[in-house]
Amino acid sequence: MSLIIRGATVVTAEHEFRADVVCAEGVITAVGPGLSAPADAKVVDGTGKLLLPGGIDPHTHMQLPFMGTVASDDFYTGTAAALAGGTTMIIDFMIPGPDGLLAGYETWRERAEKSACDYSFHGCVTAYSDKVAEEMGVLARDKGINSFKHFMAYKGAMMLPDDALLMSFNRCRDIGALPMVHAENGELVYYLQQKLLREGIKGPEAHPLSRPPELEGEAANRAIVIAAVAGVPLYLVHTSAEQAVEAIIRARLNGQRVYGEALGGHLAVDDSVYRNEDVVFARAHVMSPPFRPKGHPEALWKALQAGHLQTTGTDHCAFMAEQKAMGKDDFTKIPNGCAGVEDRMSVLWELGVNTGRLTPSEFVAVTSTNAARIFNIYPRKGSVSVGADADLVLWDPTVQRTISAKTHHQNVDFNVFEGMKVAGGPSVTVSRGRVVAADGKLLAERGAGRYVPRTAFGPAFEAAGKAKALLAPRAVQR
Amino acid sequence: MSLIIRGATVVTAEHEFRADVVCAEGVITAVGPGLSAPADAKVVDGTGKLLLPGGIDPHTHMQLPFMGTVASDDFYTGTAAALAGGTTMIIDFMIPGPDGLLAGYETWRERAEKSACDYSFHGCVTAYSDKVAEEMGVLARDKGINSFKHFMAYKGAMMLPDDALLMSFNRCRDIGALPMVHAENGELVYYLQQKLLREGIKGPEAHPLSRPPELEGEAANRAIVIAAVAGVPLYLVHTSAEQAVEAIIRARLNGQRVYGEALGGHLAVDDSVYRNEDVVFARAHVMSPPFRPKGHPEALWKALQAGHLQTTGTDHCAFMAEQKAMGKDDFTKIPNGCAGVEDRMSVLWELGVNTGRLTPSEFVAVTSTNAARIFNIYPRKGSVSVGADADLVLWDPTVQRTISAKTHHQNVDFNVFEGMKVAGGPSVTVSRGRVVAADGKLLAERGAGRYVPRTAFGPAFEAAGKAKALLAPRAVQR
Amino acid sequence: MSLIIRGATVVTAEHEFRADVVCAEGVITAVGPGLSAPADAKVVDGTGKLLLPGGIDPHTHMQLPFMGTVASDDFYTGTAAALAGGTTMIIDFMIPGPDGLLAGYETWRERAEKSACDYSFHGCVTAYSDKVAEEMGVLARDKGINSFKHFMAYKGAMMLPDDALLMSFNRCRDIGALPMVHAENGELVYYLQQKLLREGIKGPEAHPLSRPPELEGEAANRAIVIAAVAGVPLYLVHTSAEQAVEAIIRARLNGQRVYGEALGGHLAVDDSVYRNEDVVFARAHVMSPPFRPKGHPEALWKALQAGHLQTTGTDHCAFMAEQKAMGKDDFTKIPNGCAGVEDRMSVLWELGVNTGRLTPSEFVAVTSTNAARIFNIYPRKGSVSVGADADLVLWDPTVQRTISAKTHHQNVDFNVFEGMKVAGGPSVTVSRGRVVAADGKLLAERGAGRYVPRTAFGPAFEAAGKAKALLAPRAVQR
Amino acid sequence: MSLIIRGATVVTAEHEFRADVVCAEGVITAVGPGLSAPADAKVVDGTGKLLLPGGIDPHTHMQLPFMGTVASDDFYTGTAAALAGGTTMIIDFMIPGPDGLLAGYETWRERAEKSACDYSFHGCVTAYSDKVAEEMGVLARDKGINSFKHFMAYKGAMMLPDDALLMSFNRCRDIGALPMVHAENGELVYYLQQKLLREGIKGPEAHPLSRPPELEGEAANRAIVIAAVAGVPLYLVHTSAEQAVEAIIRARLNGQRVYGEALGGHLAVDDSVYRNEDVVFARAHVMSPPFRPKGHPEALWKALQAGHLQTTGTDHCAFMAEQKAMGKDDFTKIPNGCAGVEDRMSVLWELGVNTGRLTPSEFVAVTSTNAARIFNIYPRKGSVSVGADADLVLWDPTVQRTISAKTHHQNVDFNVFEGMKVAGGPSVTVSRGRVVAADGKLLAERGAGRYVPRTAFGPAFEAAGKAKALLAPRAVQR
Repeated sequence: MSLIIRGATVVTAEHEFRADVVCAEGVITAVGPGLSAPADAKVVDGTGKLLLPGGIDPHTHMQLPFMGTVASDDFYTGTAAALAGGTTMIIDFMIPGPDGLLAGYETWRERAEKSACDYSFHGCVTAYSDKVAEEMGVLARDKGINSFKHFMAYKGAMMLPDDALLMSFNRCRDIGALPMVHAENGELVYYLQQKLLREGIKGPEAHPLSRPPELEGEAANRAIVIAAVAGVPLYLVHTSAEQAVEAIIRARLNGQRVYGEALGGHLAVDDSVYRNEDVVFARAHVMSPPFRPKGHPEALWKALQAGHLQTTGTDHCAFMAEQKAMGKDDFTKIPNGCAGVEDRMSVLWELGVNTGRLTPSEFVAVTSTNAARIFNIYPRKGSVSVGADADLVLWDPTVQRTISAKTHHQNVDFNVFEGMKVAGGPSVTVSRGRVVAADGKLLAERGAGRYVPRTAFGPAFEAAGKAKALLAPRAVQR
Repeated sequence: MSLIIRGATVVTAEHEFRADVVCAEGVITAVGPGLSAPADAKVVDGTGKLLLPGGIDPHTHMQLPFMGTVASDDFYTGTAAALAGGTTMIIDFMIPGPDGLLAGYETWRERAEKSACDYSFHGCVTAYSDKVAEEMGVLARDKGINSFKHFMAYKGAMMLPDDALLMSFNRCRDIGALPMVHAENGELVYYLQQKLLREGIKGPEAHPLSRPPELEGEAANRAIVIAAVAGVPLYLVHTSAEQAVEAIIRARLNGQRVYGEALGGHLAVDDSVYRNEDVVFARAHVMSPPFRPKGHPEALWKALQAGHLQTTGTDHCAFMAEQKAMGKDDFTKIPNGCAGVEDRMSVLWELGVNTGRLTPSEFVAVTSTNAARIFNIYPRKGSVSVGADADLVLWDPTVQRTISAKTHHQNVDFNVFEGMKVAGGPSVTVSRGRVVAADGKLLAERGAGRYVPRTAFGPAFEAAGKAKALLAPRAVQR
Repeated sequence: MSLIIRGATVVTAEHEFRADVVCAEGVITAVGPGLSAPADAKVVDGTGKLLLPGGIDPHTHMQLPFMGTVASDDFYTGTAAALAGGTTMIIDFMIPGPDGLLAGYETWRERAEKSACDYSFHGCVTAYSDKVAEEMGVLARDKGINSFKHFMAYKGAMMLPDDALLMSFNRCRDIGALPMVHAENGELVYYLQQKLLREGIKGPEAHPLSRPPELEGEAANRAIVIAAVAGVPLYLVHTSAEQAVEAIIRARLNGQRVYGEALGGHLAVDDSVYRNEDVVFARAHVMSPPFRPKGHPEALWKALQAGHLQTTGTDHCAFMAEQKAMGKDDFTKIPNGCAGVEDRMSVLWELGVNTGRLTPSEFVAVTSTNAARIFNIYPRKGSVSVGADADLVLWDPTVQRTISAKTHHQNVDFNVFEGMKVAGGPSVTVSRGRVVAADGKLLAERGAGRYVPRTAFGPAFEAAGKAKALLAPRAVQR
Repeated sequence: MSLIIRGATVVTAEHEFRADVVCAEGVITAVGPGLSAPADAKVVDGTGKLLLPGGIDPHTHMQLPFMGTVASDDFYTGTAAALAGGTTMIIDFMIPGPDGLLAGYETWRERAEKSACDYSFHGCVTAYSDKVAEEMGVLARDKGINSFKHFMAYKGAMMLPDDALLMSFNRCRDIGALPMVHAENGELVYYLQQKLLREGIKGPEAHPLSRPPELEGEAANRAIVIAAVAGVPLYLVHTSAEQAVEAIIRARLNGQRVYGEALGGHLAVDDSVYRNEDVVFARAHVMSPPFRPKGHPEALWKALQAGHLQTTGTDHCAFMAEQKAMGKDDFTKIPNGCAGVEDRMSVLWELGVNTGRLTPSEFVAVTSTNAARIFNIYPRKGSVSVGADADLVLWDPTVQRTISAKTHHQNVDFNVFEGMKVAGGPSVTVSRGRVVAADGKLLAERGAGRYVPRTAFGPAFEAAGKAKALLAPRAVQR
């Protein structure tokens, strides 16, 4: 089965150029002007459109058991929705249970078999021990997991204290894996939650009050210093607060290798949603970190533009209104999470490219290529080049659409972008050389996705190691 | 017994003016031009000299039991040396033992009876419990202690975790006391100390390597965020690292009431001392935070000039070479501390006023008046005004001196300012109306100093309370 | 004629204390508890109220001939309104005509004779020449003018190019006068004005579009660098844009002596006024710099709180609707200016003290004392101390009032604070020992005000000189 | 004539990969593993080495007539030296004479015919007029010049005032050309030069004193604001001062498209050279901006690492000691300029890659690819891809060398990197498919270089246009 896309303008993170693209056996086999199609090739007309590397969402939680329920989008519905929106790969968070990381990995592999698009996993370190260290090594060396998230929030559950963070960051450095953090000061969140409940403020409006932006800034700053001591790069997931952005900028301007991710939601929505008179609406927006006061989204955009944030994700973790209602009497019991995997690309294009904040190439970088590089799967993913996986999106910059839960493919009854008008969207999505969505029709195939292992010791490690060696303590000659 | 100082230029934190000053019964009774002397008055000629409020050193540790030994300057020798240098009041840190804060207070009162100059105490919270909270309240209400220090370093000893910091800051807010922090991330210090020892780097050169400036910056930033959550002002002792200064500046530029103190030593000396070929010399400089790399002292100066640091102290904690030698095989066992109470005023004048960084009025502010205001003893201390305690320094801006342990009055065999040439110094020091040093002759009297209680709820508390009320979480009407 | 104010809490820039205050012959003769009143003394009961130094407005333009008309408040009506609001001194800008600075000084002296409160003048350098340099010297040495404003805007009129700014700043340094700047890049303003007119955008909404905040930031930054080269302190009038604030902060954090003034209007009002559907309303707000987009006022407040702005003024320059209508077909012809001298104190109290941004002492500093120090008339003005001019305000923090042009004393038919509710205001105003306003009744006397000469070489000059000497170019020995 | 390079690790700005590279007819015809060589192909063994895109030096002045003499490296000697060091393309500044830009273009084309490597030209706007505007349009549309430099320094010669800068930036925007600036405040430079000469400080040590870093910061900030008003991207040549870097960072963090270039010299050398006891040595370093005080080079490095500076050049403008001696009695007459085109790549590798500041890919970006993109010749230049010009460097990271004027190929008797030990350098340089340097032997051919025209409206223009349109002034509906 082969495919040729003719006449489009190819857009990569580096530049734009006119070329035909031929795919066969799931990979790109030719890129160039005036290519002849293989005999059996399906022909897609790209005239007047852009051909981009498929989107990579580096932050999803499909069918996650969380807070007493399970996220409503499973690996099939969630990845199918992703394809509908032009995202052809997700990196999901494998959160281990008491059986440990290896057992968790197996569970996730099994759950993900139904995926319609390619997928990979980040590990999570929810406690630190010799066993954890050992299993981290196995995952990095043998199982294709080169990144591990650490929670600085969720006191009493997954929150790690500083000494565990340091030990785990050290371990990451030694096994060539990228440490990631959910940066919020969990002690202070817990205190504010209890204080609000004591004062009788129990609705969803209390959620952002319990997690002010300063707490994210503090944790981000702390994680960055711990990473500096460990001599390892660091990746901050779902950076949402200006204070966290500033911590990242300070570190980067000081030569430290720190990466940050912004979510489509945080780039588009502010915290007024929590004060909406419709409490169901307010509850539907509960996720952590919360949507932030006006001003913060603009700070995220500016950091994306300046290169201090590199990736965009969604933290896709869908819950139905019925599930959200578990917290109707206590905001701390509302399952945390919002959907987004389907609309990220359109929202980024509308608010990014249509406003002049981003060039099309920069759009490709922040929706696909940068994630591929940071997580060490470039150029297999995130590029339009011979030999790469044929994950492509034919993008129509003129198509207009209004985002709505009524029409989306995500298995959830709410959409944080509801009513947003976007110009620009996928005309055809290609996953491993197969057309999986075209002209609004979703052709996703259950189980067609493949696991993408990621090699340890990504490109920044060698340089980080040299920089570290220069700073390392050393004996003074007397 | 009365006294008149004639013909000097009075310098206050506000302005300079020509006036005579009359003192009687330990207080200032008249300030003005051409005053007539009381019949019995001792007359001091101030012609060509400046008359300043006596210096206040808000950070000393006299005869402190620490790290298995006791600081060599006791309350008498240390305060006598202070008077020799123009400092007429100290605020010493009362560090409680297992008997608790009230017992500690009594111990300190008793130890301090031999003081030659006036004194007051900060409390220290080295663990947090209901008993501690109760005793903090008693000290603030009944004993004149309106400030409490918290250690973020010294893991396994006095270090407090974030939840204890928060509870204690909340308590401080409620009792009108100013929380203070020693800001260094103790977890990371401990890790680096152990790493250095494991790697065989055991000399004093390891001391700064185990406490890089970033760790102070991290802790300062964290303490500031905790104080913001608690809604209380905050005072950072011995700010030494540019990163900590920047954290303070960020907070202050955001409207938070945060104060910072610089030490005379940190303003004048850099970390090259630890790499000196003479290991005894290197060891003599071991204190925490350590002296910092070049660039940091300049950052402290600029923050002092811009008003982001308000006070200067010394962390005076003297140890003899013999005591320092306890750590000859292990830098973590070197008693931490350096002397400085005697020379702070001269060093600040030389590096501050003689370079144009500070006006004489600004010098008065950072060596005396600001401390008096922040710790709520102004205008009794820190001013030249009728009714104020007659603590005065007649300052000769022309006198030249080379600082040396050979000539200083401190009971210690080392001086971190050894060999520094300074122009400007005290000609006459007056403590509570009595001449206690004149023309290089020290006339300090053992036991002449008095305890100065400090009232709770200083000037910033009301404003901080209002600001907090505006930010406090509140119910949303639906 | 003498006066005693009994039982109030005196608030100075340094502290608060209970004291009676006695005034005689226009000056304060006693400050202390339980004073006995002179026989003939008028007694004012201050119980439950605060007694502050009278406000100083360092930026007014009374009866200024400008843009083809004359400001509607003359020195009498304007200063009477000032007294009604608790301001007891103004510093007006003497803008010379073709006859030069000395002639301008005489004109201003004559115009100001009708003033009801004390006054002083800043000079203005609207072109630079040997004659100007000579007359600047005479004004500084003999006429009590120790500050000169320079316009970086108003191309084709008063705008000075960089070389003239440098020469004039050098001259200021030599004569001990403080250079001031109106910081906006006049070239870029002119270009944008012409562009807007060409595009047919001629209403008052074009005014802020022609003067974006960036242009103020640029000019502020440039003036600061020129002052650094000249080795002279600098004062920026009516700082309104965050970018200018940031330029000031950068300089101050680098040790340069730069001062900034915020206007009451810029602290309270944003640029949405220019888009009001009522064009007369919009026009009434035309002043330069214009009111700024949301966010800028908050930046000014934070800089005031942190001490990077030191003074507050009004740029009081009143024009009637009829005068404003001169620009009905061309926004560049609308006379620039708004009133404010009467309400500054109340607005600052409401938005500053009532919100916890400022303590009462800090309020005194930014409305009075800091201006007195910077312009070298402290403690004669800006203090409550024996020997100072008896300019006092008995402040009632509980009185409530709604600001309105219907009730104000200013001779203008508009008020930019219209409808603003303020709690806190003057109960009694005392000017040179005379009650000039009490309980809402204005008792101002035409011509009662006196000229206040200001001595050159204020307190910062010596330090700035030393700092400069250290940086000065010097020969290298080979 | 064809060529195959076998077994190297190809390093691009995006990633590293093992591949053989085949070149024919001056372009790259194949990139991939295990390629078969064309029959006639010259075979180069790349085993153990890196294969990079040839360096692009975006800032040279070959055989420039300047300050009464002519730069000693002409287009042949200079480009041959470039090839020796691994740089395969230069962009030289065409500085027009009185005959105008088109005449200047012809002169430069003719002079450059002798070049050994490919070349392109930036234009320079040294005055602004209708004729200049017209000729800028012709150059951009027909002659391949899409960038124009403007001098903010050199008062009385090429310095442009603000209104001319604005008009020219507007013109650049309309013709799709990138405006560039030499950012130093020429008025202030001139003043300081005259002041130094008046004070008898005439040697080369006066050069940096006359051009302090603050003056570059001021001009950079001003140019950036003018570009914002014009709505056009901006490129700052030879950014050398931390203050200028900070201005760029501020703009970029605010979403403005501003680019900055660092010179190899400024990254490696500080201003102590001007105080060297050997006046000939000091004089040899005179260039503008001058080498900067310690701290500035580190600021440049950090900005390069963080992506706020994108390119590295040399400002190669060589003068012999004899020429430099023209200014022996007056530092303002020393011909400004230093060589560097030969050593930039090695210096960047040594100080960048060997220290861990840069990964090899980042090295490629800042020495080649970013310049190709910004100046719109990517991927023809700056890439290793099929169809690109075969400009390649086989880089040996292990080779050691000490830089010296004794061994360099530049036609000048001095080298600012004299004595610097570097590990890493070109093993083979390929220009348009021809081996032009190999194993230390230079095989450059006079006249082999070709002119590379550059198309207007580079990739950032469309986005900048959209962003501008959003900000543009527009009528308010009343």
